Amino acid sequence: MARGRFITLEGGEGAGKSTQARALAQLLRARGKTVVETREPGGTPGAEEIRALLVNGEPGRWDAWSEALLVFAARRDHVERVIRPALARGDWVVCDRFLDSTVAYQGYARGLGAGAIEALHALVIGRLRPDLTLVFDLDPALGLARAAARRGGEGRFEAQDLAFHQRLRAGFQAIARAEPGRCAVIDAGQPLEAVTLAGERALLDRLGGEL
Amino acid sequence: MARGRFITLEGGEGAGKSTQARALAQLLRARGKTVVETREPGGTPGAEEIRALLVNGEPGRWDAWSEALLVFAARRDHVERVIRPALARGDWVVCDRFLDSTVAYQGYARGLGAGAIEALHALVIGRLRPDLTLVFDLDPALGLARAAARRGGEGRFEAQDLAFHQRLRAGFQAIARAEPGRCAVIDAGQPLEAVTLAGERALLDRLGGEL
Repeated sequence: MARGRFITLEGGEGAGKSTQARALAQLLRARGKTVVETREPGGTPGAEEIRALLVNGEPGRWDAWSEALLVFAARRDHVERVIRPALARGDWVVCDRFLDSTVAYQGYARGLGAGAIEALHALVIGRLRPDLTLVFDLDPALGLARAAARRGGEGRFEAQDLAFHQRLRAGFQAIARAEPGRCAVIDAGQPLEAVTLAGERALLDRLGGEL
Repeated sequence: MARGRFITLEGGEGAGKSTQARALAQLLRARGKTVVETREPGGTPGAEEIRALLVNGEPGRWDAWSEALLVFAARRDHVERVIRPALARGDWVVCDRFLDSTVAYQGYARGLGAGAIEALHALVIGRLRPDLTLVFDLDPALGLARAAARRGGEGRFEAQDLAFHQRLRAGFQAIARAEPGRCAVIDAGQPLEAVTLAGERALLDRLGGEL
């Protein structure tokens, strides 16, 4: 059995990642793949408990390092109990957020630096990287308006100021520029159908030979 | 104002650390010091929430890395919000468990290795080390019996098997051997009054010039 493929969706608040994750999983299932749809922080019972500590409460509740460590505690659980076993079974994994979100949020936007987050990843997770990452790029003013309209709760990151979300966007853009072989940037400011089409096209361009 | 001193108490379950921490704090206050008594994991509201994830539930709830990362997320919060400010004010800090517990529990007893824990400390906490560490050494069979008699709840680490607790003891002993200038080993199998006396003597031997 061949190892499955690991696909991640990245971007700021309100970029439509979870909608696009469902669309990609549907496309993969239509091509006969077994798909595990999951998300970070979370994806296991323990990691979801850690998520609750991260996404609720005041913006200043955790400093950048505490936040990064909580994220990696959840990620380790998720990787060992869900992602690695799924890939080993030959399943395809579609994950809403992964390492790039930590590099962008805690590394770029909160100032720890990308190198510190990469060092933590190397220590705790090792070499696991996505095979394909779709980076949903959107003006943060628009993304925050969308996110605010969506729901209450889980608002701790949305409550950061606009400058934070601009650093976040620049972080995701820098990641995508540094790893063009892994990352495809999708303009998330387009109408929903066009975003979905662009995501599907990126998937077929990069991994279509296996579908 | 001179920087305060940072004193930690270490050892396995049921070694009497919290009782001894209170005795040391009393002695320091009697000598005119302002003392912050605290503990890990915990010591801040956020860190106590993380503690609840660590000490409750099944022994297999977290793997060793998730556990170490949760401990360091709590430690970062505690160090930045309580320990460093207290030392900067000139207060003395008496802390029930610190880095050595992570080296012993997750490094030695759970097998991550002392070097991995030291690397994480260097990344997240930096150079902060205790000025004095009292290592309360006790046969784990006796310590577990004492801990079981003490209370219900918070039993996740106590529920590990005896071999775990023997590796833990060996870990604390190895740490104390490697850093004799910082660590004093106290025989916690003695009667309570003798343990207290030995702890106070170690404090006065090592830091008495400042008292």
